[in-house]
Amino acid sequence: MYIALSRLRVAPARVDELISAFRARAGLVEGHDGFIGLEVWRSEREEGELLMVSRWQTRECFSAYMKSADHRASHARIEPGLANSVRLERLEHLSTYEVVAT
Amino acid sequence: MYIALSRLRVAPARVDELISAFRARAGLVEGHDGFIGLEVWRSEREEGELLMVSRWQTRECFSAYMKSADHRASHARIEPGLANSVRLERLEHLSTYEVVAT
Repeated sequence: MYIALSRLRVAPARVDELISAFRARAGLVEGHDGFIGLEVWRSEREEGELLMVSRWQTRECFSAYMKSADHRASHARIEPGLANSVRLERLEHLSTYEVVAT
Repeated sequence: MYIALSRLRVAPARVDELISAFRARAGLVEGHDGFIGLEVWRSEREEGELLMVSRWQTRECFSAYMKSADHRASHARIEPGLANSVRLERLEHLSTYEVVAT
């Protein structure tokens, strides 16, 4: 199983808005080949830090989704003020992992 | 759901040994109240980096396990050379999260 993890930071005052946006997401990723699940984790210590964790059967499935029109559309849906806030506070480079033990 | 995430770094030459140790773990955590699951993720880009991700029903369940004799025992089982290697390369501070969206 393949994991894609993104660390997002927003102004603490906007974190609830960002969580609401995730909860109201269109679910475009759901139909993509090899998609297993998506979770959003809120940091207990770092105010305004969220981790977005998606699971895929293989790296190739994830890469195919990242190049898809659905991926672009999912970003385009985000309210511009909120999207800019995330961008300003920083969207760190994506980290990717293979699940090697359970 | 509550997530505890630890980032471990070892010399790249020892990463397979560390993964094997996780695969052969005694499973002492399994019986603890509120434990949901444990995964070990191997970084695709950073050689020698692993994330250990455990899931709990609540923060209190995780805290109780961290204070338990089973937690101490699970660490004591690790071969000393390997344990020191992880310590030298760095065990970063634990980060904890609440799952807020799926």
